[in-house]
Amino acid sequence: MIIMRPFVTVNCAMTADGKIASVLRKQMRISSAEDLARVKELRKNSDAILVGIGTVLSDDPHLTVKGLSYEENPLRIVLDGRGRLPETARVLDDLAETLIVTCENCSKTWAGAEVLRTGRDKVNLTDLMEKLYDRGIRTLMVEGGGEVISSFFENGLVDKYCVFVGSMIIGGRTAPTPADGNGFEQPVNLKLVDYKILGNGLLLTYEPVNDL
Amino acid sequence: MIIMRPFVTVNCAMTADGKIASVLRKQMRISSAEDLARVKELRKNSDAILVGIGTVLSDDPHLTVKGLSYEENPLRIVLDGRGRLPETARVLDDLAETLIVTCENCSKTWAGAEVLRTGRDKVNLTDLMEKLYDRGIRTLMVEGGGEVISSFFENGLVDKYCVFVGSMIIGGRTAPTPADGNGFEQPVNLKLVDYKILGNGLLLTYEPVNDL
Ligand SMILES: NC(=O)c1ccc[n+]([C@@H]2O[C@H](COP(=O)([O-])OP(=O)(O)OC[C@H]3O[C@@H](n4cnc5c(N)ncnc54)[C@H](OP(=O)(O)O)[C@@H]3O)[C@@H](O)[C@H]2O)c1
Ligand SMILES: NC(=O)c1ccc[n+]([C@@H]2O[C@H](COP(=O)([O-])OP(=O)(O)OC[C@H]3O[C@@H](n4cnc5c(N)ncnc54)[C@H](OP(=O)(O)O)[C@@H]3O)[C@@H](O)[C@H]2O)c1
Repeated sequence: MIIMRPFVTVNCAMTADGKIASVLRKQMRISSAEDLARVKELRKNSDAILVGIGTVLSDDPHLTVKGLSYEENPLRIVLDGRGRLPETARVLDDLAETLIVTCENCSKTWAGAEVLRTGRDKVNLTDLMEKLYDRGIRTLMVEGGGEVISSFFENGLVDKYCVFVGSMIIGGRTAPTPADGNGFEQPVNLKLVDYKILGNGLLLTYEPVNDL
Repeated sequence: MIIMRPFVTVNCAMTADGKIASVLRKQMRISSAEDLARVKELRKNSDAILVGIGTVLSDDPHLTVKGLSYEENPLRIVLDGRGRLPETARVLDDLAETLIVTCENCSKTWAGAEVLRTGRDKVNLTDLMEKLYDRGIRTLMVEGGGEVISSFFENGLVDKYCVFVGSMIIGGRTAPTPADGNGFEQPVNLKLVDYKILGNGLLLTYEPVNDL
């Protein structure tokens, strides 16, 4: 049986020493203006944008595209297993549709947001992908953070990995990286399909190596 | 007063998610054959090669260049503040000269290796650089790991940063990265001066931005 799921693009920005934020876990400017413009286009062309609750608690992003209407904006998805999302979070504003994904045993609801429940300790990503496909989501952009991106790789759900490498070093053994989690026993092998200068940094694009 | 020090090249290999090893902290093959050949040349052209004791305890490297005689091999330097280097470590073999650098309050010695003592809790890198210059070391290659590289950046002692980005994801929030340590308050800004494909990965070369 073939399970249909959206095409998943993971996108993030890391420093030249592999960090997506400092040890304070606060957003830092890693991308160049040129890269931010690219990310905006990528968002525009996605049916949905997904982040983890860690990113929302750290950065409180809007996850909308400036200039797009409510109907035009991609669906915003937050993975929030235990329902920690504050009512005041910007992803709950009325600029775009929002879907909060919790674990099955969570009963929390949020005004103005739809809720989907799947998985026991963590959101079940494979099941979520199927449900998103069923509701018409064909292209999904995963914007972070490191815990969520790690889970997508671990579950073999990444079709494209775009990482902008900013020309700076931030250091920190506890700083978040593009893929945190517990780590894999075997590396997930990728193929570098493109690289290009964007302002003062480099955008690398990878696709999974198909071992079939 | 201008203090003279060697030209410092930091070299490492990281995965596309910013790791220099897995969570098990064991060496993993990140570099391509083409990158390994480049690293060999870089070693050959260095007066000394430096690593931290963490790297020696994890990987037990030789730090020699195949084909070079004792006299031709670069000086091997291990930063080992508390004298944890085992007598059986490969860096103590008779293929090249070795310098162990401990803190002042350490009295450990090793057969066949020279010892230099500087610094209180950690080896004092600025003082070490001066002493290396005084003994004729003009080019120093810093090969890792993440704690040591972080200290070199923190002390403003890096002249060139070469990082090979391997096409794989390994994950792990505790895996070592190119610059660990406690993290910096402000990023160290670099300039990307070169990038090139080496086998299945990309070699990035950076120089510090001179804010003068
Ligand atoms: N530079 C960039 O491109 C970029 C982009 C985004 C974020 N960031 C940075 O990343 C950091 C936040 O990242 P983070 O790793 O702490 O948090 P995160 O990945 O955004 O969220 C992780 C949380 O999501 C929940 N979750 C639910 N289901 C999950 C699943 N299947 N897999 C993984 N997590 C699941 C878990 O919390 P529960 O157990 O409560 O469910 C988990 O702790 C911040 O510092 C932010 O600034 C950087
Ligand atoms: N992919 C690559 O290119 C590459 C290259 C090398 C290593 N690695 C990996 O890196 C990992 C080891 O890295 P690591 O960060 O744990 O160890 P490390 O950087 O090799 O050594 C760190 C230790 O050096 C000592 N030290 C003395 N003076 C210091 C100073 N001024 N600054 C920093 N450290 C000082 C400290 O121990 P004391 O307090 O005892 O003095 C410190 O804990 C291993 O997993 C290895 O496989 C990867």
